Amino acid sequence: MAGEQEYIVRGGRHLFAKLPEALKDIKTIGVIGWGSQAPAQGQNFRDSLVEAGMTDVKVCVGLRPSSASMNEARACGFNEADGTLGETFDVIAKSDLVMLLISDAAQAKMYPRILAAMKPGSTLGLSHGFLLGVMNSEGAKFREDINVVLVAPKGMGPSVRRLYEQGKTTNGAGINASFAVHQDATGNATDIALGWSVAVGSPFTFATTLEMEYRSDIYGERGILLGGVHGIVESLFRRYTREQGMSDEDAFKNTVECITGPITKIISTKGIKAVYEAVEDKKTFMEAYSAAYRPTKDIHYECYEEVQSTNEIRSVVMAGDRFDRFPMGKIDGTYMWKVGEKVRAERVESEIPLNAFTAGVYCACMMSQIDTLREKGHSYSEVCNESVIEAVDSLNPYMHARGVAFMVDNCSYTARLGARKWAPRYDYILDQQAYTAYDAGAKVDPEIEAAFMNNPAHIAIAKCCELRPSVDISVSASGSDGVGGARMEFKSDKATSA
Amino acid sequence: MAGEQEYIVRGGRHLFAKLPEALKDIKTIGVIGWGSQAPAQGQNFRDSLVEAGMTDVKVCVGLRPSSASMNEARACGFNEADGTLGETFDVIAKSDLVMLLISDAAQAKMYPRILAAMKPGSTLGLSHGFLLGVMNSEGAKFREDINVVLVAPKGMGPSVRRLYEQGKTTNGAGINASFAVHQDATGNATDIALGWSVAVGSPFTFATTLEMEYRSDIYGERGILLGGVHGIVESLFRRYTREQGMSDEDAFKNTVECITGPITKIISTKGIKAVYEAVEDKKTFMEAYSAAYRPTKDIHYECYEEVQSTNEIRSVVMAGDRFDRFPMGKIDGTYMWKVGEKVRAERVESEIPLNAFTAGVYCACMMSQIDTLREKGHSYSEVCNESVIEAVDSLNPYMHARGVAFMVDNCSYTARLGARKWAPRYDYILDQQAYTAYDAGAKVDPEIEAAFMNNPAHIAIAKCCELRPSVDISVSASGSDGVGGARMEFKSDKATSA
Repeated sequence: MAGEQEYIVRGGRHLFAKLPEALKDIKTIGVIGWGSQAPAQGQNFRDSLVEAGMTDVKVCVGLRPSSASMNEARACGFNEADGTLGETFDVIAKSDLVMLLISDAAQAKMYPRILAAMKPGSTLGLSHGFLLGVMNSEGAKFREDINVVLVAPKGMGPSVRRLYEQGKTTNGAGINASFAVHQDATGNATDIALGWSVAVGSPFTFATTLEMEYRSDIYGERGILLGGVHGIVESLFRRYTREQGMSDEDAFKNTVECITGPITKIISTKGIKAVYEAVEDKKTFMEAYSAAYRPTKDIHYECYEEVQSTNEIRSVVMAGDRFDRFPMGKIDGTYMWKVGEKVRAERVESEIPLNAFTAGVYCACMMSQIDTLREKGHSYSEVCNESVIEAVDSLNPYMHARGVAFMVDNCSYTARLGARKWAPRYDYILDQQAYTAYDAGAKVDPEIEAAFMNNPAHIAIAKCCELRPSVDISVSASGSDGVGGARMEFKSDKATSA
Repeated sequence: MAGEQEYIVRGGRHLFAKLPEALKDIKTIGVIGWGSQAPAQGQNFRDSLVEAGMTDVKVCVGLRPSSASMNEARACGFNEADGTLGETFDVIAKSDLVMLLISDAAQAKMYPRILAAMKPGSTLGLSHGFLLGVMNSEGAKFREDINVVLVAPKGMGPSVRRLYEQGKTTNGAGINASFAVHQDATGNATDIALGWSVAVGSPFTFATTLEMEYRSDIYGERGILLGGVHGIVESLFRRYTREQGMSDEDAFKNTVECITGPITKIISTKGIKAVYEAVEDKKTFMEAYSAAYRPTKDIHYECYEEVQSTNEIRSVVMAGDRFDRFPMGKIDGTYMWKVGEKVRAERVESEIPLNAFTAGVYCACMMSQIDTLREKGHSYSEVCNESVIEAVDSLNPYMHARGVAFMVDNCSYTARLGARKWAPRYDYILDQQAYTAYDAGAKVDPEIEAAFMNNPAHIAIAKCCELRPSVDISVSASGSDGVGGARMEFKSDKATSA
C-alpha cells in the first residue's frame, strides 16, 4: 500500500464456506439495537448464514419492548415466535456474539449493565470504538473473560445492506470494513471478527485498533465526510452569490452539485489527482487548493486532537444529557437548501459544471485530512477509507440525491453533533484565511503543489479502488427510502431497497 | 441585588488611605508580564501607592530579559536602575505579592516553576481563575504556605487604565472587579485582595470563587461579549443582504453599527428592557427575541458545560501547542469587515438605525446568557458584570470604533481562540433555527415574553449601574492607541491615552 506493508484481508462471498469454522461455538448472534447498522448487518449476517448452510445458528434482534422499532424488525422477519426477536438484556444473556449496535450515547450510559449481562467466554462485537473512548475517559476496563472485537463497515447501514444485495449478482460489491481484536479471551477472537466481516459482505477488511478506529471515525465525519463538506459549500455559496453576483441556482450548481456530482464521480473512479487533470482551469484549481490547504489542515488538527484527548467524546455524552431540554433541530431549512431543492428537481446531470475553484477547495480539504491522519500514524487503508472511499462511495451519493444538510440531519447523533459543531469552523476559516488570501493574489505555494502532485496517497487510493471494484450505489431522490430512513427512522428492508 | 443578598465591597479613591493597613507587610509587588492587564494594573497600583503615601512599597515589573516589552515597560517608568524592572523569576522571588498577569497559556506551562520560586508567606495574585482550571484538569494543588487570591477587573487592560485616569477627576469612574480568596495562609489574604482591588481603581468589587470566576469569564467571552456578538452580526448581515436585498452599507448599519451604537448606549444607561421600550416595531422585536432565545441558549449551555468540564481549558492549552505550526490568522479581512471600514469612515452617529429585528436577536442572546449563568448558580453581580457591563461599557465601545472582528483579533489568546470557535456556532444556529422559525411565521412564545418582561435581572442590572456611575470611555477610531494596543502590541501609557 503506497510502499508500506499493511495487513488486509480479502473478503467475498466465496468465503461463506469458511464461516462454520470461523464461527464455531457460536450458536446465537445477538444484534442489539435498530439504528443505521443493525438492520443492515443483521439481515446480511442472516442471509450469509443461510448461504453457508448454518441453519443451527440464529441471528436475534434485541430491543426495548416499548421500542417503536419492534414492528420494523418484525417486518424484516425477526420475531418473538422463533426467538429471533427479544428484550435487549435477554438477547445479550443468551448470545455467543453480541453485536452492540445501539447509539454511542446509549452505549455510554448502559455499558456497565451490558457487560455484566454477557456470558463468560462470549464475544462483544462493536462497529465503532466509541465505547472504548468513553471507558478510557472514565478509567473503566472490559471484563477479562470475554472477547472484545470490532468490525466497522466504512459506510452507513443502508449502504451496507444495498451493496450486499448488489453483491449477490455483482462481484465485489460491498462496503469495506476495518477490524480489530481488542481482547482475546478464547483464543479465536480473530476468526470471529473476520467471520463477521465476511458475513456482512465486506470485500476487504483491514486491521486497526479500537482506539485508532474511533479516532479516525469520529474525526473523519467531522471533517470532509460531513462537517468539512458542509462548511465548504456554505462558504462557497455565500462567496459566489453575495460577493461574485452569481445567481442562487448557478451558485448551488457550482458548489454542492459540482462536489456531489462530477467531483465525487471522478474521485470514486480515478482518484483525487484526476480532478486536477479534469478541470480546464488548472491555475485556478491550484491557487484555490494552495490557499485552502493550510487553513483546513488547521481545523483538521484541532479536531483530531479534540478527539484524541477524549474531549470530543465527553462533549457528545454531555450533549446527549441536554437533548431533553434542547432537542437537536433540523438544519436543512435554510435559504441555501431551499435553493437546492429546486435545483435538484430540475437537474440535468450532464450539465453540472466542474468548477475549478470549488474543486481546488474540496480537494485541499480532503488531502489535508489525509495528511493529518497519516501524520497521526494511521494506516493508508484507514486513511483512504475514512477520508475518500466513505465520502465518494457512500455519503456523497446520498447528498447528491437530497443535499448535504439533509444528510447531516439523518446521521447518527455522534455524527450530527460533530457535523453541526465543525462545519461552521471550516466555513469561517475558509472565508477568513483562504478566500482572503486568494483574493489578495496569493501565489501558489510550490511546496503545497509538489506535495499534492507527488502524494503517495494517490497510489494508496488507486490500490484501495482496485481492492474494491467500484459499484455505483443507486439512491432515489425522495420518498421514505434511502438516507431518510437511515437513522432513527430506518424502515424495513423493503423500504430501503426501492 | 434583585432580592438576594450578595457580598459587595464599595471601592473608591477615598479608600486609598486604608491601603497601608490592608497591605501591611507588603513591600514589593511583582507585576509579572506585559500583556493587556499588566501595564494597566501595574501603573494604577503605582499611582495609588503614591497617593496613599506608601513610598516604601515598590511595584516591580518582571519580564523575560529578551522580551520586546522591556522597552515599553521602561517607557512607563519601570527600570532596572531602581529595581522596578527585572527578570521574571528574580522579581517573583523577591515579591510579597506576585500579580501573575502573563497569558493563560504561559501560566499553564510555567506554573510549577513559578510556584516553586515564591517566598513562603507571600501572596499569589491572579486576575483570572484559568490557572485553577488547568491545575484541576491535571490534579495539581497550590503550595499550602502561600496565599492565593484573585482580583479580576471586568474589562480589558486599556479600559482599566483609561477609566482609572478618568477617575482622578470623575467620581466613580473605573472598572468593576470580582475578588476571591482561594487560600489564606497568613490570615490577612482578604485584606490584601481588597487592597489590590481598591488600588487598581475598582468602584465596586464582588465576591466569587476562582472556579466560578473562570467559568463565567471563559464562557462569557465565548458568548455575548465576543463570540456571540460576532456570530449574530455575521448571520444578520448575510440575511439582510442576500436574502432581503439590503445594500451592503445599510446591512452593516442595521447590524454592527446598530448593536455597538444605539443598543449599547441604551443598555449601558438604562438596561436591556429599555431597548424593547425604545424600538418602534415592538412586534418584530419580540418575534425575533422569541425565535432567538432558545437556540442561543442551546449554544450557551453547550459552551458553559464545555468550560465547566474543563474541556475548553484543555482545548486552549492544546491550541497553544499548535501555534508554531498553525499561527492564528486575523479574521478581520473578510468582505463584511471591508464594508464596515467604509461605513465607519462615513458614520453619522445620530443616523444609525435602531433595527427591531437586530435588537430582538441581540437582547435574546444576552438574556439567554444571563439566564444560563443564573441557572448554573452565579451571583447577579457576576452575571451582570460578565454578560452586560463588560459588553456595553468595555468591549462594544471598542467594537464601535474598529469593528467586531478587529476586537476579536486583539484580545487574549484564550478569548480569541474561544471567539473563533464559538462565533460560527451562534451564526449557524440562528440561521438554522431562529430565522427559519421566524420566516415560517412562528408566534411569540408567551412564556419567553413573560420571562423577558419580568426578569429579575433587569433590577440587578439597574442596581449594578447605580453602583458604578456610567462613565463614557473614549476610543479613537484609528492609530496605534486603543484596543489595537491592547494585547501583544500594548504600547506605553502615553500611546493609550491619546
